[in-house]
Amino acid sequence: MMPVKFGIGMLGYGFMGKAHTNAFKKIPYIFYPFPVEPELVAICGRDKANVRETAARYRYQKWTTDWREMIADDRIQIFDNTGSNDIHCEPCIAALKAGKHVIVEKPMALNLAEAWRMYRAAREAEEKGTKHLVAFNYRFVPALRLARRIIAEGCLGRIYHFRSAYLLDRLSDPTAPFFWRLNKERAGSGVLGDLNSHAIDILRFLLQTEINAVMAWNHTFISQRPGPNGDNCPVDVEDASMLWLKLTNGAMATLEASKVATGYKTVWRIEIHGSEGGLAFELSRGNELQFYTKSDPLHLQGMRTIHVTEPEAHDYARYWWPRGHGLGWEHYHIHMLEHFLRCIATGADVAPWGATFADGFRCQEVIEAALVSGEKGGWVDINHTQLE
Amino acid sequence: MMPVKFGIGMLGYGFMGKAHTNAFKKIPYIFYPFPVEPELVAICGRDKANVRETAARYRYQKWTTDWREMIADDRIQIFDNTGSNDIHCEPCIAALKAGKHVIVEKPMALNLAEAWRMYRAAREAEEKGTKHLVAFNYRFVPALRLARRIIAEGCLGRIYHFRSAYLLDRLSDPTAPFFWRLNKERAGSGVLGDLNSHAIDILRFLLQTEINAVMAWNHTFISQRPGPNGDNCPVDVEDASMLWLKLTNGAMATLEASKVATGYKTVWRIEIHGSEGGLAFELSRGNELQFYTKSDPLHLQGMRTIHVTEPEAHDYARYWWPRGHGLGWEHYHIHMLEHFLRCIATGADVAPWGATFADGFRCQEVIEAALVSGEKGGWVDINHTQLE
Amino acid sequence: MMPVKFGIGMLGYGFMGKAHTNAFKKIPYIFYPFPVEPELVAICGRDKANVRETAARYRYQKWTTDWREMIADDRIQIFDNTGSNDIHCEPCIAALKAGKHVIVEKPMALNLAEAWRMYRAAREAEEKGTKHLVAFNYRFVPALRLARRIIAEGCLGRIYHFRSAYLLDRLSDPTAPFFWRLNKERAGSGVLGDLNSHAIDILRFLLQTEINAVMAWNHTFISQRPGPNGDNCPVDVEDASMLWLKLTNGAMATLEASKVATGYKTVWRIEIHGSEGGLAFELSRGNELQFYTKSDPLHLQGMRTIHVTEPEAHDYARYWWPRGHGLGWEHYHIHMLEHFLRCIATGADVAPWGATFADGFRCQEVIEAALVSGEKGGWVDINHTQLE
Amino acid sequence: MMPVKFGIGMLGYGFMGKAHTNAFKKIPYIFYPFPVEPELVAICGRDKANVRETAARYRYQKWTTDWREMIADDRIQIFDNTGSNDIHCEPCIAALKAGKHVIVEKPMALNLAEAWRMYRAAREAEEKGTKHLVAFNYRFVPALRLARRIIAEGCLGRIYHFRSAYLLDRLSDPTAPFFWRLNKERAGSGVLGDLNSHAIDILRFLLQTEINAVMAWNHTFISQRPGPNGDNCPVDVEDASMLWLKLTNGAMATLEASKVATGYKTVWRIEIHGSEGGLAFELSRGNELQFYTKSDPLHLQGMRTIHVTEPEAHDYARYWWPRGHGLGWEHYHIHMLEHFLRCIATGADVAPWGATFADGFRCQEVIEAALVSGEKGGWVDINHTQLE
Repeated sequence: MMPVKFGIGMLGYGFMGKAHTNAFKKIPYIFYPFPVEPELVAICGRDKANVRETAARYRYQKWTTDWREMIADDRIQIFDNTGSNDIHCEPCIAALKAGKHVIVEKPMALNLAEAWRMYRAAREAEEKGTKHLVAFNYRFVPALRLARRIIAEGCLGRIYHFRSAYLLDRLSDPTAPFFWRLNKERAGSGVLGDLNSHAIDILRFLLQTEINAVMAWNHTFISQRPGPNGDNCPVDVEDASMLWLKLTNGAMATLEASKVATGYKTVWRIEIHGSEGGLAFELSRGNELQFYTKSDPLHLQGMRTIHVTEPEAHDYARYWWPRGHGLGWEHYHIHMLEHFLRCIATGADVAPWGATFADGFRCQEVIEAALVSGEKGGWVDINHTQLE
Repeated sequence: MMPVKFGIGMLGYGFMGKAHTNAFKKIPYIFYPFPVEPELVAICGRDKANVRETAARYRYQKWTTDWREMIADDRIQIFDNTGSNDIHCEPCIAALKAGKHVIVEKPMALNLAEAWRMYRAAREAEEKGTKHLVAFNYRFVPALRLARRIIAEGCLGRIYHFRSAYLLDRLSDPTAPFFWRLNKERAGSGVLGDLNSHAIDILRFLLQTEINAVMAWNHTFISQRPGPNGDNCPVDVEDASMLWLKLTNGAMATLEASKVATGYKTVWRIEIHGSEGGLAFELSRGNELQFYTKSDPLHLQGMRTIHVTEPEAHDYARYWWPRGHGLGWEHYHIHMLEHFLRCIATGADVAPWGATFADGFRCQEVIEAALVSGEKGGWVDINHTQLE
Repeated sequence: MMPVKFGIGMLGYGFMGKAHTNAFKKIPYIFYPFPVEPELVAICGRDKANVRETAARYRYQKWTTDWREMIADDRIQIFDNTGSNDIHCEPCIAALKAGKHVIVEKPMALNLAEAWRMYRAAREAEEKGTKHLVAFNYRFVPALRLARRIIAEGCLGRIYHFRSAYLLDRLSDPTAPFFWRLNKERAGSGVLGDLNSHAIDILRFLLQTEINAVMAWNHTFISQRPGPNGDNCPVDVEDASMLWLKLTNGAMATLEASKVATGYKTVWRIEIHGSEGGLAFELSRGNELQFYTKSDPLHLQGMRTIHVTEPEAHDYARYWWPRGHGLGWEHYHIHMLEHFLRCIATGADVAPWGATFADGFRCQEVIEAALVSGEKGGWVDINHTQLE
Repeated sequence: MMPVKFGIGMLGYGFMGKAHTNAFKKIPYIFYPFPVEPELVAICGRDKANVRETAARYRYQKWTTDWREMIADDRIQIFDNTGSNDIHCEPCIAALKAGKHVIVEKPMALNLAEAWRMYRAAREAEEKGTKHLVAFNYRFVPALRLARRIIAEGCLGRIYHFRSAYLLDRLSDPTAPFFWRLNKERAGSGVLGDLNSHAIDILRFLLQTEINAVMAWNHTFISQRPGPNGDNCPVDVEDASMLWLKLTNGAMATLEASKVATGYKTVWRIEIHGSEGGLAFELSRGNELQFYTKSDPLHLQGMRTIHVTEPEAHDYARYWWPRGHGLGWEHYHIHMLEHFLRCIATGADVAPWGATFADGFRCQEVIEAALVSGEKGGWVDINHTQLE
């Protein structure tokens, strides 16, 4: 059976553009035989010289500085939006209206109003079989897939605590340069949207529960940074964001994100405690999952380190290498886009393994409430807008 | 020079009574030559049979069920109160008035009003040379002493974050029996006073800063537990307590304490990030301190694990064993009481190494504010009552 | 500048064939602009159906079951031998004689005589600019490159100890099936050649010293295993191999390799101690390097964990992802083949970063001596055959 | 029931004298009610001023510089020999002949001939009920007791590997001063007897098997060191000792000990792999035991970290502190001497929990063979001298 060709139109050629493009190149031979053949049709970015070079690098068939060209291009069936947050909404809606499957980087939108419009467009497009994905790539970490399975099987019992600490040191130096993520107009928020959005999504993914209320404490430690022209640019988003979440299942969740956590290159610690067991994960040791169960004999109970490199534990292991060989950061994107392409080919649902625009909207509800709470300093209930 | 004898009167014979008594027995030969000879004069507890046996066990010269007897006993110069929280206030004040040096377990009091009365009594007694101590033993973990030194020397620069997670699983089993710490009347609060009090104190000790405002989220997961007579006893204190603290130095502090953290026997993680470096500590690996400094060459920067078993790093190492031999939990109490006895003998100040009743009061201010915030759900400013 | 095309002929389509092919596909866009364009011309294997499917999977232009066809094919400039050990020698020599650059998987040969012939063929081919590589991929782990740099800069002083423990549990189950690596005729040796060869090579790479003498203890715990037809096949190579090495620099090296190390998926621990510092590495946490230096202040000395994800520490970081994003196992092969292709394009030396056939021969000298020692049980001197 | 008084005569007042004395002081109140009341009757050492001060410090009733005085003293029932290795043999034999129970530090003797005489004397004394102990204190690490239990219950199946690496950095500095342990005449051997003796004993304790043959590689990196008078003293014992042991149960054991392992304060790693599971222990994290079992579901298998602080896992937990509170290095000696005193009081056997002179002799057989092998460089069989 020959794979079906799907043309890719990529908006953005930076960090995420590279990660997604790499995935499209690898999927056909890693997941062989694979039902989809992604064709790199077009790439779009603001800077003409850069986008031209990027197209040459990855062998996109053409490049453009106008995303509307990609919307109009019939050879493109999949529109992948890895641009900055301010360029998510309109292009995605246009692509959905044009009948293209759409991928968008997280957070989905600058604000809840945008997210709602995007969700509505996606919902309508679904009628015609269109698929949509918010690129919450950590849902595709094999260790976290295993965590979800363990929780779903009831091994943790009643959930008491969910704890996330996403800690980087990238901005701890006050002379680290200004860029778009530090500007509210272009980013919507700071580490709340950039890092805590991941924590919110993975919480929903792992626990299969919703968030009822949020308390937030956002803070900007360094309020201006050197700009590209030697000037000082004001930073109007938070360097650090603390959240408390009341969950529908009765558990307490504490989320902490910071980019001034000196000493930590990329620490993302997730810990879950229930009545029957516990789990712990840390992204920089992403091939490992810690698991504790009260069902072990009392004298043998302890957090066990599962090396999620074995086919019994790791949904994707059979496609990669023999036992014991670990994956890296790039592979989570590959798994995610493999899932999305396969769903397009087979008609299967993107949810619950991938995050849809509905999931992106749910996350945005919490972000929006967190911004309100951060301003006012009290608990803010989540609306749970009806999504059908 | 012969050591001066000081008679000890011990209130309480449980966990802490044992830990303190053990310390009094070991100090003279470990810190030899030591200026004080503690004499175990009397021990007091509620249950006659138990207290009698405990007296025999540790060779206290006498026992009683009435603490007032110890206050009246002139052979007792040091009154050590390791009883439950509801028995802290009156006995300590009486002992101070009777001219005895006083040690009290943490949290200092049931509430801020009691703490204030205790502080006032201690402050007055100071005029006569009386010493007082709140038993925040973790100030005497060698690794945390080293942490304080590193911070005081400026190696962390401007402090951005203080993070504490004190996580136990003792109460994760709903059938774990009721005891006094689960009763507000006798304990004042739950894990807030029991565990987060340690975090509040160690924050003040390490950072040498104060707390300006607190936000709290306290929760009781299991609201009744089996009592001693087979009945169900209501639990009216929190199993889990989350705190956010705004610090005078501008840093953000997040404190989490739980006794339903299944999988964690005793995890107490403390992490501090500043503009120039970072520190991390975990109580179950109490002989280790993690330290990161930006002053290392860029390609060699990393969290280093300092084994705080060497005399260069460990203030007490020379008294114990040769290099490389670790201490355990009991030794923090020994260091603390060694300090207190030495202060009595030499007239030196208990602060800043030991926590005085002023420190205990400062901690209680935060606890009290946290209870208010937990009820109301917003930031509560700390008064910083003038302490002289 | 257009990249120069080099045709690849791949012998073998299993684990390593996949790893190498993946590398050839990724190099041009990851290391962009890259001077070489590898073309997947032909792939060869024993099983017709399998090799045909593999060719389709990776898009090799043709397939064959006769490696001589590839030697004869002028479109192939690079011959990559990832076949089993018994198929290394003749094809490599033929390819070298035909003027092709040659890559061969480790260990280089079945025995020292073969290795010598291969080395001689490579040495002669060098005259015409031919490059050769033994695929010791762990030389290209960024953390181990950093380790080499630290040692070369003298940060460890005089070297005392090199320790390697390469521990897997793949064969701990007596019912794990027989395959070619368990047969001396096809593999030459067991874990000695499969795992300890890596340790021998990385020792030479890191310390830049040679091995003077070897003592070996090889053991087969499970001497027969189920074969493909339900029969029992005798295992005539070792499951576990212990080596002691006397190094030219005066250090002691201890190497341990086992495939019956139950509990360890892939533990490869390397530790080095010198007069001025120490290093430690563990493959399953391959983005981390531990480093200790006596030049730190005494109270701050400790093993630091360098996250080798930053461009200052990691030679390849700038090609991959922003700070803090870790690599996985596959990337070491990519780095290795990038280096080899670049050396072909630029005429630069493969050594010292890559292992040449001279390095492969040096390793084989130790393996051969280890087999002798393992039989006889005493120290066996290494000849250090003059290599020109 | 009143405890029976037993008079202690202590030979040696250094590191081990302090550790043992501390134990005698703590045992009666920690293990209350305890059948023995150890009385500190006399202490003996070479330096008059030091021994006098030590006697005052620990409140020994008298002191002497002549150990024969202690042998002659009827108030002494227990002779505890913590002196240097050259003072083990004669005093122990004399004490045994005088009917005293005897404790001796490890290694038991300077050589096998001495060990044989000591064993014979102990064997004869047994007839009169005399107890004897070689102070292999690590048998009393709770985590290692648990390890023995796990192995004895068959959870590891057939044993494949035992691995010990005992690594210190105390001598990595060439200017570290000369002392008795560096002199063959006084110590018998270097790290072989000091560190690897522990590994040999714990191997026998954990696996309940014997050692059939040994291969050794001993090396002295720094062959002279500054003496007390500013002179250079020759070092005639090894800084590093590698052993391979063939075990009666068919397993391979590799033992490595070094005092020039720069970067490691006290690393003692013990790892055991069997057909059904694995164990790992590291002394500097002595409250933890790692355990892997193949009986877990396949997707949940991993090394679990058992915090050996809980009464279900820890034979001594009930005597110490509530759940979750860790012990330190000193406590292993306390457990060991508690066991010995209790055996004296009850008549119970010292073996298998404690090491008897028979165990000490077995260990010395291996040390002696290792010295021979180290000289000659081949396997040396162990005699297994008949001990009855």
